[in-house]
Amino acid sequence: MSSLKVPASVPDPYEDAEQLKKAFKGWGTNEDLIIQILAHRNAAQRKLIRDSYAAAYGEDLLKDLDSELTSDFQRVVLLWTLSPAERDAYLVNEATKRLTASNWVIMETACTRSSDDLFKARQAYHARYKKSLEEDVAYHTSGDFRKLLVPLITAFRYEGDEVNMTLARKEANILHEKISDKAYNDEEIIRIISTRSKAQLSATFNHYNDHHGHEIIKDLEADDDDEYLKLLRAAIECLKTPEKYFEKVLRLAIKRLGTDEWDLTRVVATRAEVDMERIKEEYHRRNSVTLDHAIAADTSGDYEKMLLALIGHGDA
Amino acid sequence: MSSLKVPASVPDPYEDAEQLKKAFKGWGTNEDLIIQILAHRNAAQRKLIRDSYAAAYGEDLLKDLDSELTSDFQRVVLLWTLSPAERDAYLVNEATKRLTASNWVIMETACTRSSDDLFKARQAYHARYKKSLEEDVAYHTSGDFRKLLVPLITAFRYEGDEVNMTLARKEANILHEKISDKAYNDEEIIRIISTRSKAQLSATFNHYNDHHGHEIIKDLEADDDDEYLKLLRAAIECLKTPEKYFEKVLRLAIKRLGTDEWDLTRVVATRAEVDMERIKEEYHRRNSVTLDHAIAADTSGDYEKMLLALIGHGDA
Repeated sequence: MSSLKVPASVPDPYEDAEQLKKAFKGWGTNEDLIIQILAHRNAAQRKLIRDSYAAAYGEDLLKDLDSELTSDFQRVVLLWTLSPAERDAYLVNEATKRLTASNWVIMETACTRSSDDLFKARQAYHARYKKSLEEDVAYHTSGDFRKLLVPLITAFRYEGDEVNMTLARKEANILHEKISDKAYNDEEIIRIISTRSKAQLSATFNHYNDHHGHEIIKDLEADDDDEYLKLLRAAIECLKTPEKYFEKVLRLAIKRLGTDEWDLTRVVATRAEVDMERIKEEYHRRNSVTLDHAIAADTSGDYEKMLLALIGHGDA
Repeated sequence: MSSLKVPASVPDPYEDAEQLKKAFKGWGTNEDLIIQILAHRNAAQRKLIRDSYAAAYGEDLLKDLDSELTSDFQRVVLLWTLSPAERDAYLVNEATKRLTASNWVIMETACTRSSDDLFKARQAYHARYKKSLEEDVAYHTSGDFRKLLVPLITAFRYEGDEVNMTLARKEANILHEKISDKAYNDEEIIRIISTRSKAQLSATFNHYNDHHGHEIIKDLEADDDDEYLKLLRAAIECLKTPEKYFEKVLRLAIKRLGTDEWDLTRVVATRAEVDMERIKEEYHRRNSVTLDHAIAADTSGDYEKMLLALIGHGDA
């Protein structure tokens, strides 16, 4: 369900590296060439290009991209060019910094990555920041947010299909009881949400829906001023139907007065190679306009071209 | 610092497998032969023997050992023959079962393994139990024990030597303040203990000692009837000086009226290939008798022989 378009015949990575080097040379930068190459290579291919670039020129491609490009285009190219694990580590690190703090980015990363990918992000965090991802998340959060985010980000969920229906019934009842009592920060809610496999949670949420009259998400819509409650609801949405969660982030980012490029860039860069096709379907269904059209109407220039290339608009 | 004695020339694993098969045949089992082989092979070699045994006889060596052996000898041979990751997964699973429940085993596993080894145990748990290690730990614990054990068992600590001295001072002061208030279950204590690297914690505990007049361990000796407090203290001991923690577990296991084979077996099987030489030094220093002598005086038969072989008594 990747939206990436990779050409049938991909050039040798040394050739790609050479073209990129050329794109940086002389008066101005050749942004079209950068898009033509990087937006049409998968993660393994981008890694080879970075390695070839370092071997051929003794320089770091990311540093050169950083110094040659600017603004939103720079951010999307840099995020995209990073490996998925480095990118997640970078985003979470950013989300623990004062000026770019975001409990939402931490939650989104924790709840929408596969168990292996989330663990690889923790390994990449060690390598890049010389500390653990969870120590930064724990240090920079507090209260209920910390209680929820630390177990989410340190989870290594089982990913098999096995479901224990007795347990699903039992835990659906626990969730219903705590939610009825408005005990949204109860440790049992957090335990269930943060440790159970996605298949098990799906069974639990289905039981909740069937036996308690509403979807769990609806029952959590009590109070929209409660930031913790909104985050908990979004975590459940991410675990249950990530494409719906991402559709909503994109919708709100685009509909705002002045697009929220921060969210738009992050969602496109992190989902293009994962489930962007499903997110596009969901977006079209919900907004009666394609994501391609919405992005084209709201962005411009190289930034627009890069986003459209990543979501699979046009040919490789 | 492994106490294991591996012969200079190790037989082909198929040959070892064949010898083990012979040891099971006929009237009675040849326990000496089992010890002679398994107690003198490292983890990688034992893995090859299991693979060769399965390939040659279509049977699982562990199942055959299980049916051929009995009692304490059976348990030590089985635990030892498992790979370290499978063994940790097995021990933690056992520790979440009602009849063999043990917060101590969970804490000990969480705090004395390297980050990679702890993660491998979580992977092995998925493979063997079709669920995550943390979901069982969280489900089978509650209250303060859960608050402490879940972050400990899900940690992936940074393992570099880098230390932030400013942070060490700051967090030593936080620890001192909370301990002075007897707020032993405070979320800040748990955050620091469960997320910081062992090098960072060492600097923090040194600052605590230098500036607050006592070792942190001493300040936690307030109330020996408080099971949570004892567990917290032991967790700090495990993170700080694991050989002292294990020396104490062995000392208490041996000194009891009737040896505690459960603890003795676990410590020998899990530490022989890791830091048993340091534990033996510590034991000798503290008890004025060698661990070899203490074990020989308190155990007997094949169980005794196996334990002594694993702690490096006699030749390979």
